[in-house]
Amino acid sequence: MAGDGSDQRALQYEQTLMYGRYTQELGVYAKEEAARLRESGQRRSVSERSRTLDLLEYDKGRCAKCRICTVRCQKFLISRVGEDWIFLILLGLLMALVSWVVDFCIAICLQAQKWMYGGLDSNVFLQYLAWVTYPVVLITFSAGFTQILAPQAVGSGIPEMKTILRGVVLKEYLTFKTFVAKVIGLTCALGSGMPLGKEGPFVHIASLCAALLSKFMSLFGGIYENESRNIEMLAAACAVGVGCCFAAPIGGVLFSIEVTSTFFAVRNYWRGFFAATFSAFIFRVLAVWNRDEETITALFKTRFRLDFPFDLQELPAFAVIGIASGFGGALFVYLNRLIVQFIRKQKAINRFLMKKRLLYPALVTLLVSTLTFPPGFGQFMAGKLTQKESLVTLLDNRTWAKQGIAEEFDYIGHSQAWKHPQVNVFVTLVLFIVMKFWMSALATTIPVPCGAFMPVFVIGAAFGRLVGESMAAWFPDGIHTDGTIYPIVPGGYAVVGAAALSGAVTHTVSTAVIVFELTGQISHILPVMIAVILANAVAQSLQPSLYDSIIRIKKLPYLPELGWGHHEKYNIRVEDIMVRDVRYITLNCCYRDLHNVLLTGHLKTLALVESAESMILLGSIERAQLQSLLSQQLGHTRRLEYIRERAAAEKKRLSVMSNPGSEDESQRVSQEVRFQISTEESSFSPTRPVPQKPLKPALKRSSVVERPTEIHTNPHDNSGIALKNLFCASPDTEGLEDDGDMEDDMTVREIVEWSEKQLDEQVNFNNCKIDPAPFQLVERTSLHKTHTIFSLLGLDHAYVTSIGRLIGVVSLKELRKAIEGSVTVKGVKVRPPLASFRDSGTSSSENEATELHKLWDRHKSMSLPREHTPSESDEKSQ
Amino acid sequence: MAGDGSDQRALQYEQTLMYGRYTQELGVYAKEEAARLRESGQRRSVSERSRTLDLLEYDKGRCAKCRICTVRCQKFLISRVGEDWIFLILLGLLMALVSWVVDFCIAICLQAQKWMYGGLDSNVFLQYLAWVTYPVVLITFSAGFTQILAPQAVGSGIPEMKTILRGVVLKEYLTFKTFVAKVIGLTCALGSGMPLGKEGPFVHIASLCAALLSKFMSLFGGIYENESRNIEMLAAACAVGVGCCFAAPIGGVLFSIEVTSTFFAVRNYWRGFFAATFSAFIFRVLAVWNRDEETITALFKTRFRLDFPFDLQELPAFAVIGIASGFGGALFVYLNRLIVQFIRKQKAINRFLMKKRLLYPALVTLLVSTLTFPPGFGQFMAGKLTQKESLVTLLDNRTWAKQGIAEEFDYIGHSQAWKHPQVNVFVTLVLFIVMKFWMSALATTIPVPCGAFMPVFVIGAAFGRLVGESMAAWFPDGIHTDGTIYPIVPGGYAVVGAAALSGAVTHTVSTAVIVFELTGQISHILPVMIAVILANAVAQSLQPSLYDSIIRIKKLPYLPELGWGHHEKYNIRVEDIMVRDVRYITLNCCYRDLHNVLLTGHLKTLALVESAESMILLGSIERAQLQSLLSQQLGHTRRLEYIRERAAAEKKRLSVMSNPGSEDESQRVSQEVRFQISTEESSFSPTRPVPQKPLKPALKRSSVVERPTEIHTNPHDNSGIALKNLFCASPDTEGLEDDGDMEDDMTVREIVEWSEKQLDEQVNFNNCKIDPAPFQLVERTSLHKTHTIFSLLGLDHAYVTSIGRLIGVVSLKELRKAIEGSVTVKGVKVRPPLASFRDSGTSSSENEATELHKLWDRHKSMSLPREHTPSESDEKSQ
Repeated sequence: MAGDGSDQRALQYEQTLMYGRYTQELGVYAKEEAARLRESGQRRSVSERSRTLDLLEYDKGRCAKCRICTVRCQKFLISRVGEDWIFLILLGLLMALVSWVVDFCIAICLQAQKWMYGGLDSNVFLQYLAWVTYPVVLITFSAGFTQILAPQAVGSGIPEMKTILRGVVLKEYLTFKTFVAKVIGLTCALGSGMPLGKEGPFVHIASLCAALLSKFMSLFGGIYENESRNIEMLAAACAVGVGCCFAAPIGGVLFSIEVTSTFFAVRNYWRGFFAATFSAFIFRVLAVWNRDEETITALFKTRFRLDFPFDLQELPAFAVIGIASGFGGALFVYLNRLIVQFIRKQKAINRFLMKKRLLYPALVTLLVSTLTFPPGFGQFMAGKLTQKESLVTLLDNRTWAKQGIAEEFDYIGHSQAWKHPQVNVFVTLVLFIVMKFWMSALATTIPVPCGAFMPVFVIGAAFGRLVGESMAAWFPDGIHTDGTIYPIVPGGYAVVGAAALSGAVTHTVSTAVIVFELTGQISHILPVMIAVILANAVAQSLQPSLYDSIIRIKKLPYLPELGWGHHEKYNIRVEDIMVRDVRYITLNCCYRDLHNVLLTGHLKTLALVESAESMILLGSIERAQLQSLLSQQLGHTRRLEYIRERAAAEKKRLSVMSNPGSEDESQRVSQEVRFQISTEESSFSPTRPVPQKPLKPALKRSSVVERPTEIHTNPHDNSGIALKNLFCASPDTEGLEDDGDMEDDMTVREIVEWSEKQLDEQVNFNNCKIDPAPFQLVERTSLHKTHTIFSLLGLDHAYVTSIGRLIGVVSLKELRKAIEGSVTVKGVKVRPPLASFRDSGTSSSENEATELHKLWDRHKSMSLPREHTPSESDEKSQ
Repeated sequence: MAGDGSDQRALQYEQTLMYGRYTQELGVYAKEEAARLRESGQRRSVSERSRTLDLLEYDKGRCAKCRICTVRCQKFLISRVGEDWIFLILLGLLMALVSWVVDFCIAICLQAQKWMYGGLDSNVFLQYLAWVTYPVVLITFSAGFTQILAPQAVGSGIPEMKTILRGVVLKEYLTFKTFVAKVIGLTCALGSGMPLGKEGPFVHIASLCAALLSKFMSLFGGIYENESRNIEMLAAACAVGVGCCFAAPIGGVLFSIEVTSTFFAVRNYWRGFFAATFSAFIFRVLAVWNRDEETITALFKTRFRLDFPFDLQELPAFAVIGIASGFGGALFVYLNRLIVQFIRKQKAINRFLMKKRLLYPALVTLLVSTLTFPPGFGQFMAGKLTQKESLVTLLDNRTWAKQGIAEEFDYIGHSQAWKHPQVNVFVTLVLFIVMKFWMSALATTIPVPCGAFMPVFVIGAAFGRLVGESMAAWFPDGIHTDGTIYPIVPGGYAVVGAAALSGAVTHTVSTAVIVFELTGQISHILPVMIAVILANAVAQSLQPSLYDSIIRIKKLPYLPELGWGHHEKYNIRVEDIMVRDVRYITLNCCYRDLHNVLLTGHLKTLALVESAESMILLGSIERAQLQSLLSQQLGHTRRLEYIRERAAAEKKRLSVMSNPGSEDESQRVSQEVRFQISTEESSFSPTRPVPQKPLKPALKRSSVVERPTEIHTNPHDNSGIALKNLFCASPDTEGLEDDGDMEDDMTVREIVEWSEKQLDEQVNFNNCKIDPAPFQLVERTSLHKTHTIFSLLGLDHAYVTSIGRLIGVVSLKELRKAIEGSVTVKGVKVRPPLASFRDSGTSSSENEATELHKLWDRHKSMSLPREHTPSESDEKSQ
């Protein structure tokens, strides 16, 4: 914001578009939003009732009874609509339809590409052109469309949902525009045949659906305006998203829990299951109705033998897959972040890409599709198969490489894409894995709606297949020695590999369940579980999950997890990490104290204590509230009033010249009294609700106080700008605007004196919104418990008290530091391995803070003079 | 306790043994325990260090380096032992072994019974005798053994685990004795062939294992003493319990989450998966090593066809199974509770059963085994099959009833038990279901370690089979019309029924996953999910889950769940349910206020406010602490001291007779001062830790203050008795014990006067343990959020504050009331259907409270006279 201005800002803008960087203040916003909703709800219910009455009046003449009955039925239905299960059924139905339609469109897009490619087989160059142009056009359209309509639709959406479910309101992520952009953008992006997934975006789409459905249904009932209910419904929606994407209800619920929640309310469990099951059911029923399937089956059905799925002695191979996938997953996350950071850092590239905003997606698509061109390099990596086709072939239960046996495996259907006349199937697989690996990591950085789950899943399956084929080649007759020959099933290895790699990238265990539901077979449960757990163990110790990585890249407000068994965490107490130097205000402080406190520190709320001696914590006040208090005390309106008062007094003095003795005292007294009155009546009206008309929105208030209202609401958008406004408003805007009926004839010196006097008055907190029970911890609360409480309640900070006395404060920052290993009991800094990669996102939030400080300092020297030193800069600024 | 004395108490005792009723005060206990652990931990680490040093000293002469190296290695290993995963592997291994050994023993027991029954086939009467005597002996032994060794081992254990994971310490449920009793008792109980399950007890056994392992491993490292870690490990242990019981790692984790948690920390997820997978793996590997299986497979492997598992048109039948199972499940829970309550209420039966404590189990066993006697009624209900065998036959993929086709199904193996020459297979199934239903409900009330999951599972499977067979008879060629004939698979219906009924009884969805893992097939996922969800919907609206029902029967401290979408819950605020009349003490109150406050109200803690005017909440103090403060002020020791003082003063007065003028005043002054000093030094030492020796246990303190210590620790066991002690201790025990070196020569009137004077002194809170940050809520906090916070943090009560001022209190009781529907926004009482069954447990806790009140009142009139009215009863009590 400060510093190397336009360049920086341009970069910033580019980043916003590209990765949806987030900079808004949220808590304040959430509260306002809640208040607004409550208000409009009340208004609506009133109007509804009156409408019903009207209806009754109108129809009294004719079949009144019939009408009444209808109205009652309607009422009953409406009250029923409030039930959760109706909402969940609607959500499931809607999402199943969306998922099915998206799949259908993607299939058509991919068919069209194949048809074009196939039709031009006479000319390789034309073929290449068709093969390459098609995805480039689609991706470019997707990127352009998304950026124009709703840049929030870019990317996976799971990181944003995680942040939202943590209690942070990212409102622009849940709009209808975003919904449209995400659905259409996703369809185009996947229709291009690039290695992208639909799972992450579907979590987002389901949440969008839930949010919009909530809004729609709040037309009928009242409970759709409850915040905690909405959060619960969003959590269920995430499950629906995964569930209807893979037709995996159980895996969907578990995956969404693992990926989006820190604490999970078991009472919310059935919601997820109910909605996801219904959604998956409808999704598969649509396929049956469309004659794609005979009955409801798994999406990628396998036909492994049931009686002897695998040998006990094959388990080491499965374990190897797990461990290797762990490293691979960490590498994928690292690679993905590296690409993003590289593009961000290279200013030359950046500036160029920023100008031609759609160039980056087009270039990446060109590169990827060139490499997969089937007659070209694509022949060595099964380039002509779509993602779905490759997965089906990889999970095939036949063995591709039987070296010991004479009869060559006849590659039927798509499987023959894996066979190359010159090259071994192992080479094809290795090439496929290596190429797809970086391609997927690169493709997921394109600013289109896309996920990374499915590409990673396919790579994992290919890796598993590779190991499986190797095992099959090594033990052609299987390992089992007792009589019967049970050959090795490489398809089983593919299943294990897919679960392990996707588990490693997302840091989840439930990919195992998704795999079972996708393949319709659970016979490999133990190998899959072992591999997934090992992969998770390795990946979690090396890198954050892909979603956490994106959260850090996008700088969303987050709280890191307590990782795998870092047992030193159990011994850290709040007293080790808390900030002891708390900014507070006392109940009997004057405006000058308020002002001084506001100048230092940057927490969003300030503690209110009884007195500096007792330090008894009474509550907390938002910074914005205090700022508006201060601005009102020093504001234009108030000064005009003072001038008016003074003029009146002057007039009075002229008229009552007859008794000049007691003049001075009486004027002072009356002035003081009047200030008290004015404080009570006019200056504070913006923060105090108008008692007679509590439902009136804030903007409809009298025009006299409009300016302070504006100041008051501004801080919610961007604190930096708000602060500027606030302090510009206090003493140096009167030159610009003199709309008052009274002439502002005060000199600069008078204004300074007046301000000084105002600052010495005692603060009146009567009309200030005070949070009466801010969250409190004790010194001995463990880090573990603190983390639990913070993540469950979505706290931003908590006060540490001792017998009512405020002794410290812990904010997310301290907690984050403590968890990421900067603080231990002994005070020694311990960094987890590769931690330097992890907190690449934390540094700039501190930068912001210092920038804010600079801003403060500037204003301090500019606008609000200290006592006895009305400096020259002060004169200038007037 | 009061009332119809011995009879009541006998009943109580009987109940304690039979259902493990729980009456202890827990919070206090937990804190003491934590302090003890911390203490012993410090002591140990010191001693360990010194041991290491000794070792180094000793070996300095010889190969010192080698020794040092060994010591370091040892240290490294020990520090590694602290890692979670080692703990989890050990736990998994141990539990797999236990599960396998228990299964092995049960199999032998059942084989022995069959062998006996088979060997005596010449004489039906002998056969009957053998068939009946064997289970009666085993069950009686199990019941007797359990009751003698550890009555806590009785029953399932899941309700207790739920309570423990809610934060309540039920220490006697996690001892080695309980472990032994549970394992041996369970083996015998299941070996008897009664319809009992091993799943619930295994959850308990796994938790016991974890607790004991924690204790054992705390010999090496320090982190095993952390409370929150232990809770996390217990949660993982519950997953292991289910996992190794059914070889179902995923289902185990999910089931344990659903059954034991209200809020689940996702960071704890991997622990459960890791341990449960390892455990299930070892459990199945043991079977392979024992040559029971060729490779690792599911426990009840099915072989349904993969290509067309079920037709879409069969779904209504599955839905019917789900709904019927819902009703069935609710009926089962109701029946189970009815039996318990019937036996409790019938005093005649009770007295009889109490005398012959083992008669009830024996009678029940006799009844059940008589009815299953194969040549008798058992022939109509497949009586000769064990639980496992019947489940295997029920899940068979062949159809039993093919009415349209000529060739009769040849019942091979165990399946022929279902075929009766005279009776249709449908009749057999119906009889099996009906008989097993009440038998299982009855059998699970026997005071042996047993679960109800498996019996219910089998009944569900039978019900599913019944529906499936009916469908197969109705559509002999299947419903599908396109060309291929896909006959209906009744085994699939059995799977659905099993999952639905067990889901309905336990109120869980994860039985679906358990079913997939048990059968090794996931092809029926959608029917199973639909049936389970419908069953849950029906059952949850009718009855609490079996475990919640037991929690209420046993009167464990619990908090009900927020059920299926009662949307009025979203609109209730704390201000609607809070108790406004809070008992509080002020910072400057005198002992008389303390005394008065203690006489009224019965919350475990009291609020400490700054003053009655400001009402600023400073903290909360435990009732026990205040009681000890009061008893010290009025106690025997203190009075003896006073007498000593007085005697000294008397002596002094005699010696300084020369100046008798200022005597009276000086004595009064010195007395007051001395009281201050004595308050500081002697009377309060029990609650104040000895500063020089902070690690010394409480019992090693000087004998002079031993009596107050006793009074102080007593309240933790049973508040009723403690209060008695406390008030008996103050003025009427001096007749009984005069161990002091000083003669207690005070008259009754003097004592009363002295007490009065003592009561008027100001309370000194210096050495009193104050909770400095009791949990606070705001008036506008919703019921939803309150429930969340209470269940997450395991709160007992929370204060409601407004800008630091205490305005109300919410305890579990109010919350429970509000959730169970007694309070709505409008204040109207709304009861959910069948709610009367639900709160059969809440009434008597109020009884206890009133009894406590009576006790108070009696003591009030007896011992502590009010001002100006030293009544006659007072004289008598001296």
